[in-house]
Amino acid sequence: MSTSKNALSNWGRWGSDDQRGTLNLITPENIRLAAGLVKNGKAYSLSVPLEQEGPRWPPRQKTWRVTIHSNDPQGFGGSGDALMMHSHSGTHIDALSHIWHEGQMYNGYDGGKHVTSFGATRNSIDNVAHIIGRGVLLDIPTYKGVEHLSLGEAVTAADLDACAQSQNVDIRSGDIILLRTGWMRVFSQDRALFDSGEPGIDESALPWLREHDIAAIGADNHGVEVMGSIPPDDLPIHRIAIRDLGLYLFENLDLEQMAADKAYESFIVIAPLRLTAGAGSPVNPIAIT
Amino acid sequence: MSTSKNALSNWGRWGSDDQRGTLNLITPENIRLAAGLVKNGKAYSLSVPLEQEGPRWPPRQKTWRVTIHSNDPQGFGGSGDALMMHSHSGTHIDALSHIWHEGQMYNGYDGGKHVTSFGATRNSIDNVAHIIGRGVLLDIPTYKGVEHLSLGEAVTAADLDACAQSQNVDIRSGDIILLRTGWMRVFSQDRALFDSGEPGIDESALPWLREHDIAAIGADNHGVEVMGSIPPDDLPIHRIAIRDLGLYLFENLDLEQMAADKAYESFIVIAPLRLTAGAGSPVNPIAIT
Amino acid sequence: MSTSKNALSNWGRWGSDDQRGTLNLITPENIRLAAGLVKNGKAYSLSVPLEQEGPRWPPRQKTWRVTIHSNDPQGFGGSGDALMMHSHSGTHIDALSHIWHEGQMYNGYDGGKHVTSFGATRNSIDNVAHIIGRGVLLDIPTYKGVEHLSLGEAVTAADLDACAQSQNVDIRSGDIILLRTGWMRVFSQDRALFDSGEPGIDESALPWLREHDIAAIGADNHGVEVMGSIPPDDLPIHRIAIRDLGLYLFENLDLEQMAADKAYESFIVIAPLRLTAGAGSPVNPIAIT
Amino acid sequence: MSTSKNALSNWGRWGSDDQRGTLNLITPENIRLAAGLVKNGKAYSLSVPLEQEGPRWPPRQKTWRVTIHSNDPQGFGGSGDALMMHSHSGTHIDALSHIWHEGQMYNGYDGGKHVTSFGATRNSIDNVAHIIGRGVLLDIPTYKGVEHLSLGEAVTAADLDACAQSQNVDIRSGDIILLRTGWMRVFSQDRALFDSGEPGIDESALPWLREHDIAAIGADNHGVEVMGSIPPDDLPIHRIAIRDLGLYLFENLDLEQMAADKAYESFIVIAPLRLTAGAGSPVNPIAIT
Repeated sequence: MSTSKNALSNWGRWGSDDQRGTLNLITPENIRLAAGLVKNGKAYSLSVPLEQEGPRWPPRQKTWRVTIHSNDPQGFGGSGDALMMHSHSGTHIDALSHIWHEGQMYNGYDGGKHVTSFGATRNSIDNVAHIIGRGVLLDIPTYKGVEHLSLGEAVTAADLDACAQSQNVDIRSGDIILLRTGWMRVFSQDRALFDSGEPGIDESALPWLREHDIAAIGADNHGVEVMGSIPPDDLPIHRIAIRDLGLYLFENLDLEQMAADKAYESFIVIAPLRLTAGAGSPVNPIAIT
Repeated sequence: MSTSKNALSNWGRWGSDDQRGTLNLITPENIRLAAGLVKNGKAYSLSVPLEQEGPRWPPRQKTWRVTIHSNDPQGFGGSGDALMMHSHSGTHIDALSHIWHEGQMYNGYDGGKHVTSFGATRNSIDNVAHIIGRGVLLDIPTYKGVEHLSLGEAVTAADLDACAQSQNVDIRSGDIILLRTGWMRVFSQDRALFDSGEPGIDESALPWLREHDIAAIGADNHGVEVMGSIPPDDLPIHRIAIRDLGLYLFENLDLEQMAADKAYESFIVIAPLRLTAGAGSPVNPIAIT
Repeated sequence: MSTSKNALSNWGRWGSDDQRGTLNLITPENIRLAAGLVKNGKAYSLSVPLEQEGPRWPPRQKTWRVTIHSNDPQGFGGSGDALMMHSHSGTHIDALSHIWHEGQMYNGYDGGKHVTSFGATRNSIDNVAHIIGRGVLLDIPTYKGVEHLSLGEAVTAADLDACAQSQNVDIRSGDIILLRTGWMRVFSQDRALFDSGEPGIDESALPWLREHDIAAIGADNHGVEVMGSIPPDDLPIHRIAIRDLGLYLFENLDLEQMAADKAYESFIVIAPLRLTAGAGSPVNPIAIT
Repeated sequence: MSTSKNALSNWGRWGSDDQRGTLNLITPENIRLAAGLVKNGKAYSLSVPLEQEGPRWPPRQKTWRVTIHSNDPQGFGGSGDALMMHSHSGTHIDALSHIWHEGQMYNGYDGGKHVTSFGATRNSIDNVAHIIGRGVLLDIPTYKGVEHLSLGEAVTAADLDACAQSQNVDIRSGDIILLRTGWMRVFSQDRALFDSGEPGIDESALPWLREHDIAAIGADNHGVEVMGSIPPDDLPIHRIAIRDLGLYLFENLDLEQMAADKAYESFIVIAPLRLTAGAGSPVNPIAIT
């Protein structure tokens, strides 16, 4: 059995040929119970607009959409769009092939061998037909009594626990965490600040994610994790959560309405595009209460 | 109040400035009740692989994905993708701005005015945060006792009723219809045949869709509607369902596993990318039983 | 015969169905004589690097190139590139379909009718197989004794004449003018200034271009013409030179080495990509002395 | 000094850090003398139309151009294009970074190290500011008395010599060879045949290219070299000419008019787009007599 050097590791846990990582934590029972959280029939789109000036990892190209249209005033008119964009545009999810370290991807696969210009032959996004389950919103700025966390401010494991407790919500195996830092408010207020770094979880949250057997964690920022600057020197959450835990990160969420509604528990459906061999996908995660 | 010349019309029904069409038929109560259909916790991705040789409307460009990767054997490796594709690639949903006729879009908007190279300022896909509700699979070939319907074979309103009855399933306001013609089987068996036309609903189904107040209809073919050849001379379902009824069509579904499981009722979540001003979006519709 | 309202017009001059504009001024004799200017066998590429951070009209998307590569250590390795870019990227030439005014393109063609998402059916860049002839570099900052002209500084007809005289060079029918403003130096020194506007010719140069029967004019800035800000309120040179005179503009040139060499006369070859129905093309103009 | 294993090699000939290959054969004197070949002032564009259905290496994506246009009937109208294409689309030139073998590129550079998703750091197309010189058209089908060569028909060194002799043209150092096989006629007559393989030079032509110190060779087919099928098992001309000789290949030429005019000698200007780090470029080569 392959093992990561890191103590925090799920390598081999679901077989030496596993490519699904923490998706294995989601059982039909998880899904069935999570559906029971739908009480109001209120649905939230957690995606920001996917558009040229939308949020993106700063060095990447902007999303480019050009409409193709025709109009016969006596007959048909119609339109479609040519899209040119990065797979990690706007609100998106990272495949387990997105990040590797010291040559190895999740479950020990050789990144240099399995990822080429033609895509990933292991751990690609098409292993993720869907991520469905119980969503838990952790609204850190409300817990801390601030509008939003500040640049480089860490959210620790203790913060996660204290916030959950303040919201009177427990954490269960297979949960999908929605981490609100308030940073998406900064996007519309001060784009340069938004792109200069972010608040987010620090390394103390990694054992927390592992011990609670979280299936996925998303946040209202570029990369879930705290960064004093962009690009940062290291990305320990990407490195350890994606590579060692096989845990899914999804990013650039709009959690404002859920927070306003105190929608701490929800039924969540994340449906990536089934991009063969892709490293990730834009998504529109849906939370329902 | 604007009115379509066509007797089958929802123009003005939800206000003269409505851009959401049959999404208005989906109430929180619809969503709440539909969530109650989740009994097994089994989820189906209805998307086909999104890849270069995947299904597409024949004249359109193929989806192009190029992976961007880097690998420092002592440090980080990683990958993302450059995507070049049509908004209506593979499994996708049509916005109400996708089709218009005689100059007018759904609800009377002037297509020539509201759709430019920069997108649609009315009826675009970003009006569709999500389509959620009760899914009803109508498995026509199983009802008819054939492997798949044939090229140009029409599915009539009577077929829809008879199939529903044979499956012992009723049709309700706000339902999302999953029409199985078996045509996606032809895709892997005979690509040229798949692209030459398709079985699908004919015009007799339009009053049926209107009377039942269907919110959306998807199928396992290019365009939901019967076509003797591609491109056809007319697209009456696109013309009347999209333009006059403001009804959502979604296409190129994989319904094989649902049919095998006789999953006639399900909870469905369709989450288009929130493409500002877009004419449609690739999607990965999720059905849960 | 159609006529532009503008007194400065070549509409109809080369026939009511002409789409080539001032290319008609270039005769085999022009080309033959211009080739005689090759005395040193020294060639200049007038193109800037075509790359992500290269010069571009500010609102446009950046050029995106992603390399597709593969490497079998025992066999073939190889690479190609996926390009996503605007036709008017970096150093480029404008087709006569690039700009129109009050509904009409060069020679009276209806722009709204002849230009669609599928391209231009009149005046497109594929009418320009090549532009070849005598090049005349007018080095305005050297003539004025400055490093470069300043933001919003106009180059007048009188400046053009005085500069030509100072360089002891005459102007002939069919000439290709290379206008040096020095502004490309600003590109590397102060990108924000470069993008905020530019020095260039003003409207007084239009009769000069017409009277001298210039075939094309290029410059070391975004748009040949003086702009106090970008985007400007009007683009009189684009409007009148392209639309009324059918004159070719090419832009974002690197003229530094030619200026250093005082290469005032040269043999020039401009070879646009033969983009069917395109509005312009990136180019690498070559000047030879 | 690095050396290729192959006896036919220019590695090290122009220094161990050379990246220009046979461009080194082109001297100012070559250019000066070639310009003297301009006697009629007649120019030929050797590019085919660059368009969706134009010639391309069969597995590659089609060129995609979408026009972006706007039209204010009382003010400006205008258009530009979004281009999505492979760098080796239509008529194009191969950079020396296009092909390598057993890990090494021209002049011994390590292909696996120097070529990444971000481009080539050695031997890229931006080393080729221009290729200018004497063009020699070798019209093989006319020499052989056929309309066009046939699928898989080899052009040998003896054929090249005999054809040159029949045309009464000598071959000189730094020449640019235009090899006409007639295959581009097949493109419009039988696309499937055109894409199934091609006539072209065989390995016997390699010493010929080296002994004559040819600077570049282009042809009216996909790849200059004979191929019995596409893709072929080997590409010896690409392998040895590009990698070992550092020789430039350019492809998909339209040589019909030059052949009709018996324009055996010409002045040629090839001006690749100056794509930083690119593996090649679409081009519009110009020949002038």
